[in-house]
Amino acid sequence: YIVTKMGEDWIFLVLLGLTMALVSWSMDYASAKSLQAYKWMHGELKGNVPLQYLAWVTYPMILVMFASLFCHLVSPQAIGSGIPELKTILRGVVLKEYLTFKAFIAKVIGLTAGLGSGMPVGKEGPFVHIASILTSHVPVSCSLCSPSFHLPSALPFIHACLCPPVPPSSTPPSISDLLVCACAVGVATCFAAPVGGVLFSIEVTSTYFAVRNYWRGYFAATFSAFIFRVLSVWNKDAVTITALFKTNFRMDFPFDLQELPAFAVIGISCGFLGAFFVYLNRQVVLFMRRPTALTRFLTKHRLIYPGAVTLIIATFTFPPGFGQFMAGELMPRECINSLFDNFTWTKISAPSAPPSLGRSSAWLHPHVSVFVILLLFFIMKFWMSAVSTTMPIPSGAFMPVFILGAAFGRLVGEIMATLFPNGILFDGIVYPILPGGYAVIGAAAMTGAVTHTVSTAVICFELTGQISHILPMMVAVILANMVAQGLQPSLYDSIIQVKK
Amino acid sequence: YIVTKMGEDWIFLVLLGLTMALVSWSMDYASAKSLQAYKWMHGELKGNVPLQYLAWVTYPMILVMFASLFCHLVSPQAIGSGIPELKTILRGVVLKEYLTFKAFIAKVIGLTAGLGSGMPVGKEGPFVHIASILTSHVPVSCSLCSPSFHLPSALPFIHACLCPPVPPSSTPPSISDLLVCACAVGVATCFAAPVGGVLFSIEVTSTYFAVRNYWRGYFAATFSAFIFRVLSVWNKDAVTITALFKTNFRMDFPFDLQELPAFAVIGISCGFLGAFFVYLNRQVVLFMRRPTALTRFLTKHRLIYPGAVTLIIATFTFPPGFGQFMAGELMPRECINSLFDNFTWTKISAPSAPPSLGRSSAWLHPHVSVFVILLLFFIMKFWMSAVSTTMPIPSGAFMPVFILGAAFGRLVGEIMATLFPNGILFDGIVYPILPGGYAVIGAAAMTGAVTHTVSTAVICFELTGQISHILPMMVAVILANMVAQGLQPSLYDSIIQVKK
Repeated sequence: YIVTKMGEDWIFLVLLGLTMALVSWSMDYASAKSLQAYKWMHGELKGNVPLQYLAWVTYPMILVMFASLFCHLVSPQAIGSGIPELKTILRGVVLKEYLTFKAFIAKVIGLTAGLGSGMPVGKEGPFVHIASILTSHVPVSCSLCSPSFHLPSALPFIHACLCPPVPPSSTPPSISDLLVCACAVGVATCFAAPVGGVLFSIEVTSTYFAVRNYWRGYFAATFSAFIFRVLSVWNKDAVTITALFKTNFRMDFPFDLQELPAFAVIGISCGFLGAFFVYLNRQVVLFMRRPTALTRFLTKHRLIYPGAVTLIIATFTFPPGFGQFMAGELMPRECINSLFDNFTWTKISAPSAPPSLGRSSAWLHPHVSVFVILLLFFIMKFWMSAVSTTMPIPSGAFMPVFILGAAFGRLVGEIMATLFPNGILFDGIVYPILPGGYAVIGAAAMTGAVTHTVSTAVICFELTGQISHILPMMVAVILANMVAQGLQPSLYDSIIQVKK
Repeated sequence: YIVTKMGEDWIFLVLLGLTMALVSWSMDYASAKSLQAYKWMHGELKGNVPLQYLAWVTYPMILVMFASLFCHLVSPQAIGSGIPELKTILRGVVLKEYLTFKAFIAKVIGLTAGLGSGMPVGKEGPFVHIASILTSHVPVSCSLCSPSFHLPSALPFIHACLCPPVPPSSTPPSISDLLVCACAVGVATCFAAPVGGVLFSIEVTSTYFAVRNYWRGYFAATFSAFIFRVLSVWNKDAVTITALFKTNFRMDFPFDLQELPAFAVIGISCGFLGAFFVYLNRQVVLFMRRPTALTRFLTKHRLIYPGAVTLIIATFTFPPGFGQFMAGELMPRECINSLFDNFTWTKISAPSAPPSLGRSSAWLHPHVSVFVILLLFFIMKFWMSAVSTTMPIPSGAFMPVFILGAAFGRLVGEIMATLFPNGILFDGIVYPILPGGYAVIGAAAMTGAVTHTVSTAVICFELTGQISHILPMMVAVILANMVAQGLQPSLYDSIIQVKK
């Protein structure tokens, strides 16, 4: 059964998975190198604060403005996330030039520059867009080698090429089937999360889901996530196939039942905060749309808006300046890794920090409490993320929101660790509280609230490689969803409404 | 959005989850006590082999025959798994008396007796049945307290009670929506696997899946799995909420890329073996249907067939007899725990077995190699499982197949550990091979092949509480599915075909 079903399009799915994995890995590689150069420059200039500030601010400005200019010139369709547009297409609306090769180039180059700038922009939404473009182009490139060459009629051709047994009446669903798979592959290659990717694509894109897509999605997503991780093994980034942000919590007793109220509080608060994030993001977009003198000026000089936003954000995060109070030196991925670590920061004083702390030492300040730093980080990154996702560059909101949630969860976790400094007594054994676990739960709950999905919990497990917190995380994500869905549409629906 | 959607039936879902968790936990408790008594009796009679044999054989025979008699007298609909019947109902066929309270009683009592007998019967399928019965009765019981009491018209009433805003034309989908949730809850309470339960119910029951069910399913499944695990914490079985069959593999390097071919071999072999299992099971059922003198006799004396099957199986597993060559003393749950352990059995000789080995010492025999024992176990349990799931008692096939897969995976793992006794060299560090990881992958691949689902991988993660093997497991499960789907229908479809 499956063989006949898969036979026709498995080559296509393998090609899609392979290409996406290569694209994802190359982009990660390029943006990581760019961030490395950025940090190196900042480190080399130590001692000369004005020059250091200039470098800290100019580098991301150049990259963001380049991304913005490139997208504007090559394909303005590449701007933004990609999931709202895919959702619109799946509802039957034809979006002009959305799935062109030009958009692909603009998205890849622009996103790499955006990620390399260290701004709070994500990779998930654009990846879904890239995968859906590939979905409509891979068969075309295949056909270049074959005698029957039908370039101009791309979409009908895919159907003809891939789904001969389907009767002609069902032509449109077949294309959307492939686009749903593309969404799954996009998420899967972004986070090395095949199961989470498939579930996320189900939740985000469809109201009725054909179970046959499930199979296609799993196949392509697993393959691409697999290749993506194998590439990093070959590059000696990792010794074997592991999770992207691996945590190392104790497994014998990850949490106690008495900590559940705290997890529930995280879930409910994240619901409110997530809804507020969607609201704030929409207000920024709506403000930019209003015909005032300022916005007219910004529309005329397109590079000024992204440049100014980057300037303000970089100024705030400048490590020797205000950045020291909000761990400004940490790049997004370092933030996640340090927020998920195994330490209890309130128990470490900054001067005597153990060297094993690594990057997490950025969260400790000799004079300021960890709580203040976490709170400042959360508040500052909150508006930064809401604003920076409105810049005219390819940018997703998933990762920034994930970081926000992790910071919020960590804050609650550190408060709990202070309230119960000796941990929670159970059955004669005292188990200390694990603030990193709270951070993981907060990250899942916040992204769940903003995107209105439950599968963020699954993505979280696959990202961290640990499933020990499954039940409290599911509870928190469901609570966050209940609150957020009552208050605001999902971020994607909000963008669709605004763009109408 | 979700609040209005959930508002009407969240009380119902909470009630369903709560009841199922209580039923699941009580059944586990009762059957565990029964198995304890069984093993105690066997242990006390040590030295007197004939008496020991009598006890070993009589105890399960009494329980199985009691279950068979009870089901026959109270409700013959309670016999068998439950998933095929649910699938039939969801396709629109009305099955008479399938969702009655009598069937519920028969299923619960019969299943507890069956599980308590130590026979290779599972709990998953019957649990889906129990949950779907509850789905059609919980609202009725609610209405007993309310003034508007409509007992005889159960199903229309559910609809009227739960889904007022749905237009009348969509009445049937609403009931199936709830039954899909019931399936998710059944699987979730059985394995404490909320995500896996929802996915399994999607794959098994529907061809087109309404995403709004996703929400209901997650909510109910998480709640029930949560209560189920909380109950075991209260009962001091576990110190906190953990996985059911928790594994403790090393996380820093769970496996090497060079082990992948072995994982692929497991996947493909499990595909063939799973298809053969379905074939064997169907042949046994068809044989029992054929009108021969033997089957006429067995139909007349209904208790003889289950009694004889139990007698034969118990004779083979009798620990001082043939059972010593197939770890016959281990009850199903002990099998899983020991197959998933962290040891490499080929490196341990039976006399000098460390005491930390625990139950796993049953796999070591002073004179017989571990390979022979694993192979014998696999072969014997294979036909035992295929036959015992045809007995006229409530019995699922998921758990027996899971054990088969685990044994097969373990066998491959132990062979690998012998071929590479020093582990696999990578980058200067030598990592020994982890046969327990192979067992987990085998279990997921085999159940995936028999049920034609991919979500068994997710159930596996939730059962073991470790997600480190995600990518090889997904690869193995997909390979197993590809092979099995090409050869045989799924076990559930096979039963539907046979019962037609």
